[in-house]
Amino acid sequence: MTSATATSAPPNAGPVRQTAAAASTTDLSGSPLRVALLGCGVVGSEVARLLTEQAVDLRARVGRPLELVGIAVRRPNRSRPGIDPALFTTDAASLVTRPDVDLVIEVIGGIEPARSLILAALANGASVVTANKALLAEDGATLFTAAEQAKADLYFEAAVAGAIPIIRPLRESLVGDEITSVIGIVNGTTNFILDKMDTDGAGFAETLAEAQELGYAEADPTADVEGFDAAAKAAILASLAFHTRVTAADVYREGISEVSSSDISSAKAIGCVVKLLALCQLSDPSTSGRDRSVSVRVHPAMIPRSHPLAGVGGAYNAIFVESRSAGRLMFYGPGAGGSPTASAVLGDLVTVARNRVRGAVGPGESSYAARPVAAIGSVTTRYHLSLEVADVAGVLARIAQVFAEHDVSIQTVRQNGRGAEASLVIVTHRATDAALSATVASLHELDVVRDVTSVMRVEGE
Amino acid sequence: MTSATATSAPPNAGPVRQTAAAASTTDLSGSPLRVALLGCGVVGSEVARLLTEQAVDLRARVGRPLELVGIAVRRPNRSRPGIDPALFTTDAASLVTRPDVDLVIEVIGGIEPARSLILAALANGASVVTANKALLAEDGATLFTAAEQAKADLYFEAAVAGAIPIIRPLRESLVGDEITSVIGIVNGTTNFILDKMDTDGAGFAETLAEAQELGYAEADPTADVEGFDAAAKAAILASLAFHTRVTAADVYREGISEVSSSDISSAKAIGCVVKLLALCQLSDPSTSGRDRSVSVRVHPAMIPRSHPLAGVGGAYNAIFVESRSAGRLMFYGPGAGGSPTASAVLGDLVTVARNRVRGAVGPGESSYAARPVAAIGSVTTRYHLSLEVADVAGVLARIAQVFAEHDVSIQTVRQNGRGAEASLVIVTHRATDAALSATVASLHELDVVRDVTSVMRVEGE
Repeated sequence: MTSATATSAPPNAGPVRQTAAAASTTDLSGSPLRVALLGCGVVGSEVARLLTEQAVDLRARVGRPLELVGIAVRRPNRSRPGIDPALFTTDAASLVTRPDVDLVIEVIGGIEPARSLILAALANGASVVTANKALLAEDGATLFTAAEQAKADLYFEAAVAGAIPIIRPLRESLVGDEITSVIGIVNGTTNFILDKMDTDGAGFAETLAEAQELGYAEADPTADVEGFDAAAKAAILASLAFHTRVTAADVYREGISEVSSSDISSAKAIGCVVKLLALCQLSDPSTSGRDRSVSVRVHPAMIPRSHPLAGVGGAYNAIFVESRSAGRLMFYGPGAGGSPTASAVLGDLVTVARNRVRGAVGPGESSYAARPVAAIGSVTTRYHLSLEVADVAGVLARIAQVFAEHDVSIQTVRQNGRGAEASLVIVTHRATDAALSATVASLHELDVVRDVTSVMRVEGE
Repeated sequence: MTSATATSAPPNAGPVRQTAAAASTTDLSGSPLRVALLGCGVVGSEVARLLTEQAVDLRARVGRPLELVGIAVRRPNRSRPGIDPALFTTDAASLVTRPDVDLVIEVIGGIEPARSLILAALANGASVVTANKALLAEDGATLFTAAEQAKADLYFEAAVAGAIPIIRPLRESLVGDEITSVIGIVNGTTNFILDKMDTDGAGFAETLAEAQELGYAEADPTADVEGFDAAAKAAILASLAFHTRVTAADVYREGISEVSSSDISSAKAIGCVVKLLALCQLSDPSTSGRDRSVSVRVHPAMIPRSHPLAGVGGAYNAIFVESRSAGRLMFYGPGAGGSPTASAVLGDLVTVARNRVRGAVGPGESSYAARPVAAIGSVTTRYHLSLEVADVAGVLARIAQVFAEHDVSIQTVRQNGRGAEASLVIVTHRATDAALSATVASLHELDVVRDVTSVMRVEGE
């Protein structure tokens, strides 16, 4: 099975048993567990480095040594200081099906070949640790089913919010409780941009450019800025929190590219800050038991500055969880980066290795509740609207009438300026997205409304 | 083994199979796991209530029904609405050794009879969930060893910081990382009192009285106010974070009864707030590997208002963790109360029940590092001192000389008032506790120092 290609060293050739060498200096109990690593970018190279550097502690924590036996890469000849070149192979398929591999770490990312490799590893009896949010959000069910059939572990703490321990708290610590809401700032790039816009008063485009220069945003920022990354994480969080299957396609998604500096200052005017939120919520308890639906959405929203999530600055992540018995919890930390992500991967690696030593597996998928995902139109929240209006008698009455016709209740109205500069800022009570959209459509048709300049949800009451 | 006493109903008499009744309405796979509950106070009664109310969900999450078969109490005839009276027994020893009991929940608290009952339950092959911080901190090693020998689980998420998931993050999520510091606000009573003193400017005694009236402090507040409760939690956190054994007796402890309103205002003057902190820290990395000692202490300290822990108000708890790869993490939530603690207990119960269904056990004790606990005298931190001094020429020089003689470097000095009211506020750089104590002793001997009115540590730089 070790049919290495011509361009790679045979996985089991040369001085590859890094930990065995270190282990020989102290008491060694048990044969090593063999680890295959798929991918050697920022996270993978840090994982490889720590596997060597922390070998003594990792062995003590697992009860047996961890031996890195191969690293699948696309370019084996690229210089990767501190990692034994003999470990590299381009033949990932052969690496994951080596009969002696116990544990496979997947940090390639993306759908293929990651999915095929994980499935092959599980079929080969190996336990898998992955940081692959996109794959889990698109096709987690296939992976979980394969793990269950193979009686192997599939762990993925690194897939959501980097080093912040959130997967175990949701899967295990809170598993005796009823989680009702998970609201996260789970994308550091967009949080950095919005934080900068809030602090500097700058617009989106120039702040994005600055973030790109500083390395906080990719050259193609679409996955972050348009909310795809956050939506994948939201799907994973919602699945765990509500014991159901939610995929990326189920997640309503709006990015931050339409957020303007005037949205930010409007938020300030009502004591709020704009954040890109991943919101996973169980529907109102008045609908009973299993029939309660979930809403899962990613969009910019205004939240009160007093909310615990409001103070999460820069590239940090945080996840705010509400449950029936535990109440309100928050988890905060670095949401990305090589070292934090490697920490999460290694925490999972030690856990699945311990399970293997004990002949056990950890918790699998829990999707028994099989809850419907609510259409965005039926989801309720509060809204902030800015309108440019004609400064004539009766304008407020006509606008209020439009809201009333659509059953959207107004909480506050403020008029700014006079004459041609007149604008109205309206904050609503909770209303459905459908009702609000219909209201906005009707407002556009009113001759006294010159423009609806901003519509943004208000969360975290 | 079911030798119930005359005052209690036989544990297996009457309609005790609460979940079996609920389960009969849906598909039932597998025979029930039998649960014994020790204690039925605020937490125990909430656990019993939720076991019934959430039976359908708990069964789905475990894979088998959970059946509450007995509750050990001292007063079986006391009214406990919503709980089947047939479940009560005063014979706890017989309950935990019933051959059909799979899982035992201990929420009695204190050392005995809790320890004997847990050991008997483990010897009987049952897995145990406990919220007993005092017992774990005093004699955790005995319990962990018994669990290991019995190949049974011992879980204790509820023992530290109520519903905040912190045990799994330390034992599992961060187990591939090197944790260097755990700083917690882990006692809600003292945090409530200090928060009130900060907000209202009131003294300790009157604020304690107010907290007692509001139910935030016990009639005998010693365990909270003098830091015993926080010290037990610190011992547990340090043991987990550093893979070593730390007992309550190893923890240096000062309570908050000596904190004055002038300490609070002194803290404000330097941009700080006073908190009772549980500090668990790994010694400086310049000392290598296994020889690194740990310091574990509980005392009031000033921390900058910009520190994430500074904003933790009222009876909330939070734990701030620093590790080499993951960086800075914070966990925040309600630290006590019946419902939050019951949430943590049930999360553990589902986990150990799942393990039992799979024939597995979770992680046991990890104490391989066997680190020495540093004596308080050798622990370094910064200090804030207030001195009443004679307003004469050369006073600062003489005082500075005393600091220099003891190798304590001064960061800032501020003189307040003149004449008989003159006072000095000094903040030091890092110094050992021993050096600082010697400095204070020498200051008392100086004729120009009328009094040393306050000495407090400054943490969280």
